[in-house]
Amino acid sequence: MMSNRINQLFGINYPIIQAGMVWCSGYKLASAVSNAGGLGLLGAGSLGIDLLREHIQKCKKATDKPFGVNLPLLFRGVEEQINIIIEEKVPIVFSSAGNPAQHTQRLKDHGITVVHVVSSLKFALKAQDAGVDAIVAEGFEAGGHNGREETTTLCLLELLRGTLRVPVIAAGGIATGEAMLAAMTLGAEGVQVGSRFAVSTESSAHQLFKDYVINSGEGATTLTLKELTPVRLMKNSFYTQLQHAYAEKADPEQLGAILGKGRSKKGILEGDLIEGELEIGQIAASLDKIETSAAIIQDMIHHFNEAAKRASGFHF
Amino acid sequence: MMSNRINQLFGINYPIIQAGMVWCSGYKLASAVSNAGGLGLLGAGSLGIDLLREHIQKCKKATDKPFGVNLPLLFRGVEEQINIIIEEKVPIVFSSAGNPAQHTQRLKDHGITVVHVVSSLKFALKAQDAGVDAIVAEGFEAGGHNGREETTTLCLLELLRGTLRVPVIAAGGIATGEAMLAAMTLGAEGVQVGSRFAVSTESSAHQLFKDYVINSGEGATTLTLKELTPVRLMKNSFYTQLQHAYAEKADPEQLGAILGKGRSKKGILEGDLIEGELEIGQIAASLDKIETSAAIIQDMIHHFNEAAKRASGFHF
Repeated sequence: MMSNRINQLFGINYPIIQAGMVWCSGYKLASAVSNAGGLGLLGAGSLGIDLLREHIQKCKKATDKPFGVNLPLLFRGVEEQINIIIEEKVPIVFSSAGNPAQHTQRLKDHGITVVHVVSSLKFALKAQDAGVDAIVAEGFEAGGHNGREETTTLCLLELLRGTLRVPVIAAGGIATGEAMLAAMTLGAEGVQVGSRFAVSTESSAHQLFKDYVINSGEGATTLTLKELTPVRLMKNSFYTQLQHAYAEKADPEQLGAILGKGRSKKGILEGDLIEGELEIGQIAASLDKIETSAAIIQDMIHHFNEAAKRASGFHF
Repeated sequence: MMSNRINQLFGINYPIIQAGMVWCSGYKLASAVSNAGGLGLLGAGSLGIDLLREHIQKCKKATDKPFGVNLPLLFRGVEEQINIIIEEKVPIVFSSAGNPAQHTQRLKDHGITVVHVVSSLKFALKAQDAGVDAIVAEGFEAGGHNGREETTTLCLLELLRGTLRVPVIAAGGIATGEAMLAAMTLGAEGVQVGSRFAVSTESSAHQLFKDYVINSGEGATTLTLKELTPVRLMKNSFYTQLQHAYAEKADPEQLGAILGKGRSKKGILEGDLIEGELEIGQIAASLDKIETSAAIIQDMIHHFNEAAKRASGFHF
């Protein structure tokens, strides 16, 4: 069994990280992934304060393996969330959407491993300077909030290759063992998988959302709301509303008013496919079934090994 | 030395195809790539009628290896170009930007191998039905004209994997041997490389254009003019003009008027970095030198072999 800096950093068998996703990744999903040998992450972005503590405690009961919390740094309650993470002795934090310089040192002073999610080389270098232990490099194809440069996973990995001291975890478009090997060929030492776990059995997303995702095809997602924060979501009635607003030259304020609050909860957790904001990655087009997290990890590792075996015969 | 359906189809050593690019790929580039063991393509999109015949004849003198023509099917002189290709006995045609059903059979009746460039699974299946021998799957990161679904190379390869009878050549974001191995891990049997050859010694692009590309960094290209035909280009003064037009709610007709005619020639061939349309792929951000085509192919094969050797040690 091979090992690399990502396995060793987290103390896990397989360098497969389940992305911390709003309304999908509570303790059920995170513990299932960690129990299967990957790294499960609680998505603090949709857990607030009290639910975050509850899910951390439930996760600790559900697994004795390492797990972490994904922490969007722009949430106004982030200080309180960090206090909970420290009090509850969560070993790993993946921070995102904000400046890692503010919180990384405090987390590390408490023995917490810190990883930061970026979508550019520029912010990867900043995160490294802030003292993070690894970075997640997330490409244009990733679901949910995304970068402004629109750099794809392939091009982003090429930009990062050989430029960082800390190890890189690839994200965006990765749902198979073959894609995991491709990412590792391009210098990543692990992968973060979102969409495929979003539609797993243990995801807290609504059944209607999961069914909508696995029945979708190419062109079903798009990156929109670039005037606010770019977000990749599935086209639906809500997205059509946005398109009408764009056609009528809506300004960012008007777009923000249409978006309003709570749309991702409505779509992902409550299964409102009409009015909800359905965040998912472009790789959704390739997903066609709902499986357990353990089955996903086993399938990825099996195909990773098979693909590596094939690659060993490649020589010109 | 390994071999696969792409090598065999074209009769070449390495399944590396140099993309047929406007104002870059005349006979000097195409013959240099073919002489180095890849497949060189003349870009008919900027050769018109008389120059196409001249470059085909010069290419035949410059190499005894197979080479081809990239033929955009929407060009009004396409029938005449096809007559020239048949008369001059060009062995391979890569068609793009149009419906392959119209011309594939005629080309094949003359013993010509036909490949069609697509950016979606839907059009890959249509091209296969039209009888093409292989398809090029071109992702969102590719330079020049591009698809509307914005599917990245990684996600597009995942969508195509296992669905086609004909072999797949991956394009978009590929400039290294590592990326070539990544693409082949995802089911491709060859790669088409544009940007790196666009800035090669033998490319007919202007020196100022080449220098601008190799000195650019992340975020330097963008996909724009989606209301006309989506095109990936470098941000420059001309692009700023477009942005102002967008800010002033220009309609497609107005955008077309701003674009006008001959802007890509002005930018790429004549080196007008201000008023020109500078078509190039997102991977330009990773390119930092001008090399001969032979050096590019040798470097890609070397790193492909090294990466495959490393992958053979990957096992969980």
